[in-house]
Amino acid sequence: MNKQTLIQTQNRIKPFIHQTPVLTSQLLNEKAGCNLFFKCENFQKMGAFKMRGATNAILSLSEDERQKGVVTHSSGNFAQAVSLAAQKLGVKAYIVMPENAPQVKKDGVRTYEGEIIECESTLQAREAAANKVREEKGASFLHPSNQDEVIYGNSTAAMELLEEQPNLDVILVPIGGGGLIAGTALAAYYFSINCKVIGGEPIEADDAYRSFASGKIETNKGANTIADGLRTHLGNRNFPIIKKHVDKIIRVEEDEIINTMQLIWERMKVLVEPSSAVPFAAVLKNKEEFKNKNVGIILSGGNVDVTNLPF
Amino acid sequence: MNKQTLIQTQNRIKPFIHQTPVLTSQLLNEKAGCNLFFKCENFQKMGAFKMRGATNAILSLSEDERQKGVVTHSSGNFAQAVSLAAQKLGVKAYIVMPENAPQVKKDGVRTYEGEIIECESTLQAREAAANKVREEKGASFLHPSNQDEVIYGNSTAAMELLEEQPNLDVILVPIGGGGLIAGTALAAYYFSINCKVIGGEPIEADDAYRSFASGKIETNKGANTIADGLRTHLGNRNFPIIKKHVDKIIRVEEDEIINTMQLIWERMKVLVEPSSAVPFAAVLKNKEEFKNKNVGIILSGGNVDVTNLPF
Repeated sequence: MNKQTLIQTQNRIKPFIHQTPVLTSQLLNEKAGCNLFFKCENFQKMGAFKMRGATNAILSLSEDERQKGVVTHSSGNFAQAVSLAAQKLGVKAYIVMPENAPQVKKDGVRTYEGEIIECESTLQAREAAANKVREEKGASFLHPSNQDEVIYGNSTAAMELLEEQPNLDVILVPIGGGGLIAGTALAAYYFSINCKVIGGEPIEADDAYRSFASGKIETNKGANTIADGLRTHLGNRNFPIIKKHVDKIIRVEEDEIINTMQLIWERMKVLVEPSSAVPFAAVLKNKEEFKNKNVGIILSGGNVDVTNLPF
Repeated sequence: MNKQTLIQTQNRIKPFIHQTPVLTSQLLNEKAGCNLFFKCENFQKMGAFKMRGATNAILSLSEDERQKGVVTHSSGNFAQAVSLAAQKLGVKAYIVMPENAPQVKKDGVRTYEGEIIECESTLQAREAAANKVREEKGASFLHPSNQDEVIYGNSTAAMELLEEQPNLDVILVPIGGGGLIAGTALAAYYFSINCKVIGGEPIEADDAYRSFASGKIETNKGANTIADGLRTHLGNRNFPIIKKHVDKIIRVEEDEIINTMQLIWERMKVLVEPSSAVPFAAVLKNKEEFKNKNVGIILSGGNVDVTNLPF
């Protein structure tokens, strides 16, 4: 891949996604001691950046492949993203979800006409169910984070941010499965002079931090974090990009995530999900490092159950 | 006053306020059956449109008056607006608040260096305390809604909205003390071809609805509504404007306010306070009336205690 790949990706998905706004807050700048630029992917269609990667992955299929549909296993934002992107493009979407997935997640998928295939709540069961759909329907499998087309689609959030703010010193994003940070790192590499990319990760699910240190993909034993989007581990497609282009990973505690989420809600008046608060929590934890810098932060999503908040 | 008055007002306050964004939502358009344009005054400085009127009122004082400070009685957004506007303009602000006002409201005022003067929780005690400050300090009294400069300052929100969306058929705003709707009605009269202005009001505090019917200012006995910004009644400066330029007032139930507030939070990912949900609740209650129209809604503020939500 090269710079042209990303430009083509951006042009390909543009008609199907929102160009989300970049918000600033004088009060938060004062609090953090730097100039913050928040890229609001919580305002993206279906409420998360995942719409970008899902759209690009489906648009990259052949006409024949599209007719057979797509399948993924996810109980999070990618399930909704694939459902909505597929609906917009007239493609059938099969979504494998554990039978104990929250009703609100199932409803989200059904809103966008995704067909839910229930399975047991283990990775093996999910993969088996997804494989069955591939074989029986000929559907193309889409991975939430470890697939090139998904990663390139994700790059477009940082590309838009850098178009608006070319002088960023650093962009911070949450790191879960690695798809957003890999895409962001490629965008910064090809479309900035010297903009670093830093990941924010919960200490409770610090597989990426440990992978970065050991040089091989580590996994989480517990992953007992409120940042439900960040419990997964890296993959063989995104980890090489992360190793090459990401500056570092900063870990934060659960109470730092919750306090930062509340701060964003109260001061910026925007809803973000816990995962989205992680990178800003990392900035607040390391103020000296970011002092007076131009700091981009991708608010990755806003899908949160407002009837069940941690504050 | 005339059109020039409003243009001068807009130019006067421009350096001190945010030009807030106008957001749209395909999903909410489909739900409501019309084209909605949400003017996000919840993103305004201190989190509400009140910043506009307060800033204009202080900027309209003479140099001598400014040196003696300003005083208001409010336990709501206007207290914070006056505090912040005064701070920005180097003017002393005295804020009369009932001693039982929530700590979060007092903290808000103190954040912006307003000096709190506590009094008993009656209108008489508030007015007496404010009068005392006027006499002792020579401070100028600013009224939250019933003062020309405040009303004209409020007009600028709808002026900005009409600049961006000149083809609006109607603008809806919440109606409490009458300052926002009067300002909006003037803006629509002078800066649109034929844009109507409609008020949304809680049935539990429907003084404006009754005033509109009777032709004289009515008050509320109970005002037991979650829309805490809308419990006050109209005044002699704004009621004539409302009578002349407002099309109608639509009343909504408490559960409609709460459901609409949750809908805005979940679908638009923006925090609005209960008062801000009232006009959209009025649209959802009267879909036929607004069908396929271009509907502007001013989301008046976003100051809400996120640890104490009605859903």
